[in-house]
Amino acid sequence: MIRKDSQWLHQRIMETGSFLCVGLDSDISRLPVSLQGSDDPVFTFNKEIIDNTAKHCVAYKINTAFYESLGVKGWLSLEKTINYIPNTHLIIADAKRGDIGNTSLQYAKAFFDTLPCDAITVAPYMGEDSIAPFLTYQDKWTIILGLTSNQGSKDFQTLETKTNSKVYEEVLAKSKEWGSTDQIMYVVGATKPEYLGDIRAIIPDHFLLVPGVGAQGGDLDAVYKYGSNSKIGLLVNSSRGIIFASSDRDFGKAAGQKALILKKQMSLLLGY
Amino acid sequence: MIRKDSQWLHQRIMETGSFLCVGLDSDISRLPVSLQGSDDPVFTFNKEIIDNTAKHCVAYKINTAFYESLGVKGWLSLEKTINYIPNTHLIIADAKRGDIGNTSLQYAKAFFDTLPCDAITVAPYMGEDSIAPFLTYQDKWTIILGLTSNQGSKDFQTLETKTNSKVYEEVLAKSKEWGSTDQIMYVVGATKPEYLGDIRAIIPDHFLLVPGVGAQGGDLDAVYKYGSNSKIGLLVNSSRGIIFASSDRDFGKAAGQKALILKKQMSLLLGY
Repeated sequence: MIRKDSQWLHQRIMETGSFLCVGLDSDISRLPVSLQGSDDPVFTFNKEIIDNTAKHCVAYKINTAFYESLGVKGWLSLEKTINYIPNTHLIIADAKRGDIGNTSLQYAKAFFDTLPCDAITVAPYMGEDSIAPFLTYQDKWTIILGLTSNQGSKDFQTLETKTNSKVYEEVLAKSKEWGSTDQIMYVVGATKPEYLGDIRAIIPDHFLLVPGVGAQGGDLDAVYKYGSNSKIGLLVNSSRGIIFASSDRDFGKAAGQKALILKKQMSLLLGY
Repeated sequence: MIRKDSQWLHQRIMETGSFLCVGLDSDISRLPVSLQGSDDPVFTFNKEIIDNTAKHCVAYKINTAFYESLGVKGWLSLEKTINYIPNTHLIIADAKRGDIGNTSLQYAKAFFDTLPCDAITVAPYMGEDSIAPFLTYQDKWTIILGLTSNQGSKDFQTLETKTNSKVYEEVLAKSKEWGSTDQIMYVVGATKPEYLGDIRAIIPDHFLLVPGVGAQGGDLDAVYKYGSNSKIGLLVNSSRGIIFASSDRDFGKAAGQKALILKKQMSLLLGY
């Protein structure tokens, strides 16, 4: 078993010249018509996406919602996809789970034992004991929602507290004490690079999973400028912009090209 | 299709003499040995629990974690269980989902279209657009985490904001504007009845889903005293205290007895 800690991630980023994470938000209604007759269109699609993008990225993020929406069949596609991702890559279950302790432990089992994921995203609203069970898996990553990329992040995450911080800052400051920088990452949206300085002041050493580049409009250069650290410390995710680059038979190739473009931008930022 | 709105719920509570919700946190490692050889032990267990408790309760809450932890098999048990619950009862998927809009929509599809649930629990951290897709299903219930029953609720939920309210109070006050009292409920832990007065000041008319009676130590009388409204407005959940009342072959009967005891307490409170 490889321990995919922050050193491993840093090394993989430098070897690949990329800190790209490809998001498999494989909405069945958006798959190419050519796949619709296949036995398992979602897995067939993902397989070709993975084959074409693996050398340009260091991680895959599987958005569980797009699989759950298909019921048992979807869960089968999810399982097959996760098992297909090469072990050279970080496998992230983007599940945003979180519940009381005995329940969170079951979610941890679901993604870390039953499925061989390396990481899971979790929601912090229920506090420490809702996240602690994930952290008992010390060789896995728990990725806590910090400041998300969507409009609604302003509803509660950026609320000002009595001590002049924002709720998401309290989340970062408290939760960073719950585990090491080799097991905790944070979700920070690329649509808010202006916050990255404040965030790095609180968590200078953590890896950040940054969604929102591409379809959601985030800016890669700004993210790198304000968000990178000595270990790079960034996994920048793109989902729809890559996987739905073409709705035709050439979707795999088109996805590969989009991933390559992002990788080249990243390589430049990395000084290659 | 019955519209299971607040009036329907109120009527069912008065007919049944109970506002009990039975939580199917059916941890496979805790099932009676007698079931371990069965083809689908989790479903077999749930079926017998449902058969023995249905006349004492008005809702079932399925904790998705305990099914996901078993992978595809677990998702099958989940599906069979949900399809087995009689339509006289409210079916709650306790899933605590929530993500950006296009993703939350997939979660809504998973539980409202692919599965015939009447309600789902959602986490509010990501704000309005993460919850709005659930609310587009106007004949379904979206149950938002307010103040949860666990220790960690003090980490962020009760943080004081600049305007002298607490984060969970902001969640209640904002989110109640997003839909009607026939489609939004709130999770409020029974372990904190002292907060129920403050909560009812903000949301007098909403139904509350109240976990934490039983294994977590909440007090039913206090919950009713401070939390009930003119439509009763409460679904009190008990999971482990009922379903694991006996670890022997008589587990169904034992669960029925525990549910009956709670129903009797509830009937007294309802003035029967």
